[in-house]
Amino acid sequence: MNLNNLLRLAFEEDISSVDLTSEAIFTNSDVSTAVLISKDKGILSGIDVFQAAFQYFDCTIHFECYKSNGDQLSEGDAICTIKGLTKSILSAERVALNLLQRMSGIATMTRACVDAINGTDTRIVDTRKTAPGLRLLDKQAVRQGGGFNHRFNLSDGILIKDNHIKASGSIENAILRAKKYAPHTVKIEVEVESVSDFIIAQAAGADIIMLDNMSNEDMASCVKLKREDCLLEASGNMSLERLIDVAKTGVDLISVGALTHSVKAMDLSLRFE
Amino acid sequence: MNLNNLLRLAFEEDISSVDLTSEAIFTNSDVSTAVLISKDKGILSGIDVFQAAFQYFDCTIHFECYKSNGDQLSEGDAICTIKGLTKSILSAERVALNLLQRMSGIATMTRACVDAINGTDTRIVDTRKTAPGLRLLDKQAVRQGGGFNHRFNLSDGILIKDNHIKASGSIENAILRAKKYAPHTVKIEVEVESVSDFIIAQAAGADIIMLDNMSNEDMASCVKLKREDCLLEASGNMSLERLIDVAKTGVDLISVGALTHSVKAMDLSLRFE
Amino acid sequence: MNLNNLLRLAFEEDISSVDLTSEAIFTNSDVSTAVLISKDKGILSGIDVFQAAFQYFDCTIHFECYKSNGDQLSEGDAICTIKGLTKSILSAERVALNLLQRMSGIATMTRACVDAINGTDTRIVDTRKTAPGLRLLDKQAVRQGGGFNHRFNLSDGILIKDNHIKASGSIENAILRAKKYAPHTVKIEVEVESVSDFIIAQAAGADIIMLDNMSNEDMASCVKLKREDCLLEASGNMSLERLIDVAKTGVDLISVGALTHSVKAMDLSLRFE
Amino acid sequence: MNLNNLLRLAFEEDISSVDLTSEAIFTNSDVSTAVLISKDKGILSGIDVFQAAFQYFDCTIHFECYKSNGDQLSEGDAICTIKGLTKSILSAERVALNLLQRMSGIATMTRACVDAINGTDTRIVDTRKTAPGLRLLDKQAVRQGGGFNHRFNLSDGILIKDNHIKASGSIENAILRAKKYAPHTVKIEVEVESVSDFIIAQAAGADIIMLDNMSNEDMASCVKLKREDCLLEASGNMSLERLIDVAKTGVDLISVGALTHSVKAMDLSLRFE
Amino acid sequence: MNLNNLLRLAFEEDISSVDLTSEAIFTNSDVSTAVLISKDKGILSGIDVFQAAFQYFDCTIHFECYKSNGDQLSEGDAICTIKGLTKSILSAERVALNLLQRMSGIATMTRACVDAINGTDTRIVDTRKTAPGLRLLDKQAVRQGGGFNHRFNLSDGILIKDNHIKASGSIENAILRAKKYAPHTVKIEVEVESVSDFIIAQAAGADIIMLDNMSNEDMASCVKLKREDCLLEASGNMSLERLIDVAKTGVDLISVGALTHSVKAMDLSLRFE
Amino acid sequence: MNLNNLLRLAFEEDISSVDLTSEAIFTNSDVSTAVLISKDKGILSGIDVFQAAFQYFDCTIHFECYKSNGDQLSEGDAICTIKGLTKSILSAERVALNLLQRMSGIATMTRACVDAINGTDTRIVDTRKTAPGLRLLDKQAVRQGGGFNHRFNLSDGILIKDNHIKASGSIENAILRAKKYAPHTVKIEVEVESVSDFIIAQAAGADIIMLDNMSNEDMASCVKLKREDCLLEASGNMSLERLIDVAKTGVDLISVGALTHSVKAMDLSLRFE
Repeated sequence: MNLNNLLRLAFEEDISSVDLTSEAIFTNSDVSTAVLISKDKGILSGIDVFQAAFQYFDCTIHFECYKSNGDQLSEGDAICTIKGLTKSILSAERVALNLLQRMSGIATMTRACVDAINGTDTRIVDTRKTAPGLRLLDKQAVRQGGGFNHRFNLSDGILIKDNHIKASGSIENAILRAKKYAPHTVKIEVEVESVSDFIIAQAAGADIIMLDNMSNEDMASCVKLKREDCLLEASGNMSLERLIDVAKTGVDLISVGALTHSVKAMDLSLRFE
Repeated sequence: MNLNNLLRLAFEEDISSVDLTSEAIFTNSDVSTAVLISKDKGILSGIDVFQAAFQYFDCTIHFECYKSNGDQLSEGDAICTIKGLTKSILSAERVALNLLQRMSGIATMTRACVDAINGTDTRIVDTRKTAPGLRLLDKQAVRQGGGFNHRFNLSDGILIKDNHIKASGSIENAILRAKKYAPHTVKIEVEVESVSDFIIAQAAGADIIMLDNMSNEDMASCVKLKREDCLLEASGNMSLERLIDVAKTGVDLISVGALTHSVKAMDLSLRFE
Repeated sequence: MNLNNLLRLAFEEDISSVDLTSEAIFTNSDVSTAVLISKDKGILSGIDVFQAAFQYFDCTIHFECYKSNGDQLSEGDAICTIKGLTKSILSAERVALNLLQRMSGIATMTRACVDAINGTDTRIVDTRKTAPGLRLLDKQAVRQGGGFNHRFNLSDGILIKDNHIKASGSIENAILRAKKYAPHTVKIEVEVESVSDFIIAQAAGADIIMLDNMSNEDMASCVKLKREDCLLEASGNMSLERLIDVAKTGVDLISVGALTHSVKAMDLSLRFE
Repeated sequence: MNLNNLLRLAFEEDISSVDLTSEAIFTNSDVSTAVLISKDKGILSGIDVFQAAFQYFDCTIHFECYKSNGDQLSEGDAICTIKGLTKSILSAERVALNLLQRMSGIATMTRACVDAINGTDTRIVDTRKTAPGLRLLDKQAVRQGGGFNHRFNLSDGILIKDNHIKASGSIENAILRAKKYAPHTVKIEVEVESVSDFIIAQAAGADIIMLDNMSNEDMASCVKLKREDCLLEASGNMSLERLIDVAKTGVDLISVGALTHSVKAMDLSLRFE
Repeated sequence: MNLNNLLRLAFEEDISSVDLTSEAIFTNSDVSTAVLISKDKGILSGIDVFQAAFQYFDCTIHFECYKSNGDQLSEGDAICTIKGLTKSILSAERVALNLLQRMSGIATMTRACVDAINGTDTRIVDTRKTAPGLRLLDKQAVRQGGGFNHRFNLSDGILIKDNHIKASGSIENAILRAKKYAPHTVKIEVEVESVSDFIIAQAAGADIIMLDNMSNEDMASCVKLKREDCLLEASGNMSLERLIDVAKTGVDLISVGALTHSVKAMDLSLRFE
Repeated sequence: MNLNNLLRLAFEEDISSVDLTSEAIFTNSDVSTAVLISKDKGILSGIDVFQAAFQYFDCTIHFECYKSNGDQLSEGDAICTIKGLTKSILSAERVALNLLQRMSGIATMTRACVDAINGTDTRIVDTRKTAPGLRLLDKQAVRQGGGFNHRFNLSDGILIKDNHIKASGSIENAILRAKKYAPHTVKIEVEVESVSDFIIAQAAGADIIMLDNMSNEDMASCVKLKREDCLLEASGNMSLERLIDVAKTGVDLISVGALTHSVKAMDLSLRFE
């Protein structure tokens, strides 16, 4: 879904006929200036989406921005100034804020994870556990927070999970079939839950191996056993506190579903002047 | 956006061409049975949406459900059994789970709020701070958790907020214009931040008055001063801990933005047999 | 459906491949000027939609307007001048006129109703009996004609009609359930067909009562019996001639389905110079 | 726009979130039976569309029909019986009726025109003056009323109107260019306003000539002068009363814009049992 | 499907999330200039579509064109220069070229057919054998190559084919019913496979007769027997070599399915400077 | 674009209002049986899409299939039998055949390429040079012909082409940036035009190297120089005749744009019985 599509849906959802309140109170000659304020500290993400939302609604709205995506915000920071028709600003405000607060919430949590493993070579990556319809924005927020994206969807990567393995009979079976079918451009990733399964998956030719819900010790063992060109991804119950110990095992990637499935909206607010 | 539209978008987002992994490993004659398991305690919400997602993808998938929306779940509970083509179940799993886990997360948090004010006459209500595109599902989850819905969008209610008041000059101005314009079917709600503004708003004929970020004492004062047919809604920083004291002031409603803007996904998982 | 969506559908419907006539006769360097003329008297409505239709089709078309929505038109009045590519004006003309003529027809009929009850406090309101896909424009035309809008759709108002009452068993039952479920922002309206049912509905707590197909005498009786905060809406067979007598009974609102379900297009015509 | 698209739009327009009234009052186990009654006399049109609307909304709704499209209805006639979930019937009723009442209104007016010229060889035809988005249904209603369709849109016929002639310089110019460009499958129609222009158009090779706003006498003159393979279409201010005299001039077709631009909805009603 | 719709679909198909390569390598300040070069000889078609594709993707891309649709191209010709963001040009290149190369391929083949019958009065026409979704562009390319369009779709022409005749019982039956039903604006075409069937079809009143898979001699016989106002269309296995002999029989039209069902893309390439 | 979307667009394109011919000639009680016949030899592809097209149009159409996708067809072979409403079969025939003939044409050409390199380990792969809107079907046809798919779009693979290299300054630059940005799931492919550039690209860490328009000798040199885990893809002017010599150089893949950009429709025909 491209951004204009999403904005169309979001505004149809939020204004099924007219904005009764703003239509009632304001005329087409009322104009206002409003400032976007940070009411908490965190990482800004989606300021371009926020601006696009207002301008999708009314292309005459004018912006002046003081902050960029990825910037650290403190409480009270002014982020941008918006000028335009009072009616337009009030009607578009909620849709724009809903997007911005979610994206900044994701970026803020991502940055916390990235900072937690500072000094290691491990990447923080996201998952497909995103809000339906918002995946591209959710993953953009992860990048703006300093994380990296895992595959975008089922069509741009091969990831053989526990259920695939159960249904296909064995790790070797699943990998063999994937290698035969897969486009040559795609790496093959396999999820394992033990060191012994890791050994089998690596021997069968997996390019990436996801260590799911394994202890730090077992992950460290896998790191020692791995081929140079094989990547290891730690996954499962990755609390902020645990990240540094996981990273120190030497895994290449840590995937954190909570980045996008359990978002805490950042507190941002539009203040009319 | 109706449910089929949302599912179409969600699947287009998650499968831009083909599900490489499942296509590689399984044939059209492989069938499987999987059980949906609760891995945490909470309130089930969206089991109909979960089922609709699988059946949108492949209408031959068969369901047997053991739990209903609104049911309390314990860790390890089996919620339903799914039978069908292995490929279809694996391809549709993530979209279906993303919706279910979000809705159940919302319902779980809502139930906690409702339980916190048990014994009072106050209603827990939601806001328009929902994930763009998901408002109807977010609000359905609130109801299934035991909460009530505030207005769905800008077209089905009048809510004069601080920015409307600033831009219109005064509370009286804003209310006067709203009463003149509004369809006769809609009540007029006004947001105030002090007891004195409450008095002004009530005198000007507001049907509902939102007490925003006020102390419990001030809210209690407003309750004493209010007309019988006027409703009071408490809003702003409504932590779970504070809810009971707010409810005891006698307000009619407490609106909680976090129900939908800061959702913690419930941990639910599909286990192949 | 937003306006651009409607225009896209309307043009796809009217030009499935190319406008054979205009493509055959004109080149891309032919330009023309045309004047929109009123060929009857009435109320202008939708001139912004008319302009939007041409500019959706070809954003280089230029407009000069002499009249505004809500203006009284006489036969022969020039409404606006259009300049642009001959091909574009001719290809877009019919879609633009179809919308404008319908809206102006609605506004003209509405104004006649409003004028008919001049001097009373009664509002003329519309219904949901609109052309599918055109509700927002139909209701906009009613406002521009001087009428007021009833609810826009089933989601922004509660109206318990005869069939709801029959199916639920009794007026009290229906009202009781509605009060329990309804968002606090919405008033509850009930349709009754007799004075005795009016009394029941009012006692059960209806906020608005629709008096359906009742005699003027019965409506007057209801007015005498009503609570101050209860609104009365007269409905059913509201011919232009009868309106003043109905208004004089003291009802607050008269709803007229014919405003939008039986529209007489206003005669407006584009004349090339 | 195909019918399912139209129904989707119509229901999105009429139910932006949920049908508050029906959701409040009924459960998913309430079922009802309703009968569609004619409250006036006229011609039924769109009963298939009416049924499709209910079944689009809820495919379990069951129908039994007693009348077919094109049937003459008398006041009080039962047209069909509908059984299904109470909620579904009530939620879909208005959309279904809006379509049916408009189509039956068009068919009724068309039948009156056709009857008015009974005994002549002249066809009653429609125009492109239809409600945007509803053209296919409007034109279907004309056929079901006994009329014939003119071209569906700008892509399936060539009709050189007064504005084309003005902008191209002369009737001959316009016809010449059209003959050179037009697909060989399409006839060329020209609008004229005088006998002399008729003669010019016929000489230039028009296949069909529209006599616009001409007196009955002038139309009779054209009929005498016309080539055998040339068709004449009378147009402009075709009141029901005048039709027979126009038809008696011997024109082949009479086009009546009012059939679709000034529709009087037929009075049809759903009665719960 | 209008052009913007098609472009939206094409870009959604080609960029399901982000253009990984261009995002990785370039920043938003990198700009480039590229020249579109012909790598073969042929006829240019769709240069407006090519430009529209780039500008749909990024409206700041700038064009300078040296060639127009319908122009003859030689190997090495520069067609236009494109300037803009490097990322935008690279991301939109393939969609734009896919459209342009197909259209120019169609125009090139069409021109070869038209040239092959140079000096005769016969028209080369296309068919409905186009790529689904691309019919308008395919038919535009035929016109730009010097051919003419047959009907655009099933709604703007009547063509009674062999299967219609088989299913209806006889040529006369089929023609009779078509004449009774058809809008007066449309000609009636019938497909025949022998001289005797041609005679029947002409006697029954066909306006156009398609001579399907007939020998040149039989087609010549039909030409001799035809009424002046009847058009003959040769069809079936029309190789480039055979065209001139068919045209010399005197048929009015030759339809060539291969123009659009078996397109050879023209070799055109974008070269960065 | 999923298949139902494509079919909706294709039918809207082919039937903008009604199928005039079939509506005119047949009633809703006429039924027919038709057989799909191969009129040439080739590889069947898209028989499921063909069936889906008919059943999208009319779900009561019944099929019996004698051949499967990937089967070799001879002239005269019966492929399937279709039974249903005469009107439905005739209205849907062209859309269904256009899709099937294109897909079978692609599969036939692909099979010829695959057969040409029989006995080698080289894969035939497709490109992104597909008809806009038809990529998934075009690529499905390639697979059914025995070829393999290259990346589906810009989002599921990294391919650094000549223009990327020019704009970024050097091969090393481009690869370096790609490795830094790319998701860990994706391989990095680089296009080179000489042996020396091949050496650079391999040294910089490319996973796949496309040898563009290189001589067979140079390609053989690259094969000798390559790392074991690096894949080589030959590309550019891959005529059927040349394929075996290219394959014998030892490249892993040969990409053939003509498979999808220059499709010759397979001759398949529906014969009514």
